[in-house]
Amino acid sequence: MCQLLGMNCAAPTDFSFSLKGFCRRGGETDKHSHGWGATIYEGRGLRCFHDTLPACQSPIAELIQNYPIRTYNMLAHIRYATQGEVSLENVHPFTRELWGINWSFAHNGDMPLFANTDQDIFLGKTTSDTVHFNAVGDTDSEAAFCAILNALKAEFPEGLPTLSVLHEFLNHICDEIIAGRSEDTIFNFLLGCGQYTLFAYSWPGARSGSTVWNGLHYIVREPPFSTARLLDVDYTIDFSAVTQPNDRVAVITTKPLTEEAGWTEMKRGELLMFDKG
Amino acid sequence: MCQLLGMNCAAPTDFSFSLKGFCRRGGETDKHSHGWGATIYEGRGLRCFHDTLPACQSPIAELIQNYPIRTYNMLAHIRYATQGEVSLENVHPFTRELWGINWSFAHNGDMPLFANTDQDIFLGKTTSDTVHFNAVGDTDSEAAFCAILNALKAEFPEGLPTLSVLHEFLNHICDEIIAGRSEDTIFNFLLGCGQYTLFAYSWPGARSGSTVWNGLHYIVREPPFSTARLLDVDYTIDFSAVTQPNDRVAVITTKPLTEEAGWTEMKRGELLMFDKG
Repeated sequence: MCQLLGMNCAAPTDFSFSLKGFCRRGGETDKHSHGWGATIYEGRGLRCFHDTLPACQSPIAELIQNYPIRTYNMLAHIRYATQGEVSLENVHPFTRELWGINWSFAHNGDMPLFANTDQDIFLGKTTSDTVHFNAVGDTDSEAAFCAILNALKAEFPEGLPTLSVLHEFLNHICDEIIAGRSEDTIFNFLLGCGQYTLFAYSWPGARSGSTVWNGLHYIVREPPFSTARLLDVDYTIDFSAVTQPNDRVAVITTKPLTEEAGWTEMKRGELLMFDKG
Repeated sequence: MCQLLGMNCAAPTDFSFSLKGFCRRGGETDKHSHGWGATIYEGRGLRCFHDTLPACQSPIAELIQNYPIRTYNMLAHIRYATQGEVSLENVHPFTRELWGINWSFAHNGDMPLFANTDQDIFLGKTTSDTVHFNAVGDTDSEAAFCAILNALKAEFPEGLPTLSVLHEFLNHICDEIIAGRSEDTIFNFLLGCGQYTLFAYSWPGARSGSTVWNGLHYIVREPPFSTARLLDVDYTIDFSAVTQPNDRVAVITTKPLTEEAGWTEMKRGELLMFDKG
């Protein structure tokens, strides 16, 4: 299994604090050492970082923990390979362009529907004639991302709908992925849609024979800001000293990153939409 | 105008030597200081690095000059903005997935056909119903890349053709882009198709009122290897000491990077295909 980190902000924010703790889990405080990746929205563009090294050893991860990139929206992933070998094409987040918008996807879980990645899965109105996105690597996660985008393109041929329509449609698509496999499916994902919008979905669970719980937790930090201590490394930050009164930051992650009041576990089947925090 | 660097190799090769000289032109020995980018194929995956900082100042550029990533195929670009503002979405190389393959594109020049990037251009058999790829940013370069991929998808709905058929078709598409605008067009590009294959096309020229010549030069290094000195920084390498007998490396760039016999300027309208060197 893997771990996810997302951040969605009302104003461009430096994510190095959260990433500092998260990357320790990639081989140091936890076992997710089969590569890591991050996609960071900047304007309409997207900075992508992918490495097959553990996050705790990767020179690229070290660089972006110290390089002050500020963003409204980012997602990151540390991988513990359960499907697909350890190779760059299997490192999340995956990215595609649809309607001139950069989309990005990171997943934690097991999806029986996508277990055979050689076979196209048609969600929503997708048909064999309307398949546009194809997986490059071998993961069920990338196959699911492509199937979701194919369904979006088939449903909205004119382009991006309103965010509330998009939210409702994604909810239907998630139901379709779970339907009839609710016991065997673990499906937690972060989906970035352009520079301001991040979707988080949770269908949590533990793999057969394992006690490790895979869910999603989130916290929304807004004034008055307080201090927080990272759980994975001895590092404390006083947010009131580094924030502005209009700041608001949502952090979504597999397991809480800090000793701090306000972390909430997402409900089963919940799809949250964060837009500018 | 911008400058291009591509490398295509018979065996995975470290490109830090070429990149070291090339990045100096991004703000130090030349004026191409409006961002830089590189895409580096690794297996079926793709490492992407983009920055709006000049290449000579970018911490990310410094990192990958020193981080020994070895690859069969890579392309890089330093930008001097003539169309589209200085922003991450306008930084080359651009990337898209087609047929489950990562494609990547970097361009130097001016294309009157794509001067109005709000308007879709249909190349080959593309129609308004078969447009799949859309530009995210504002450059004529990304618009051209999307139009080329849309034409490929319309022509070969079943997937990737043989490389010789692909080469021939790309030649036709380049003719279509130049046709009727041969005097006003400067169109030098590198197009990466998956982990082994790189296309280089040159339609060289100088912009009106400028003496700067925009073309493409290439060199193929193979045994017996000799030494080469970078032109942009005081650095010499003895290739015979760092290579194996089966190595063969093609380097393609706007202007030769080294004092070395063997650099050849591409002919007007020439489309070269490099496959594993």
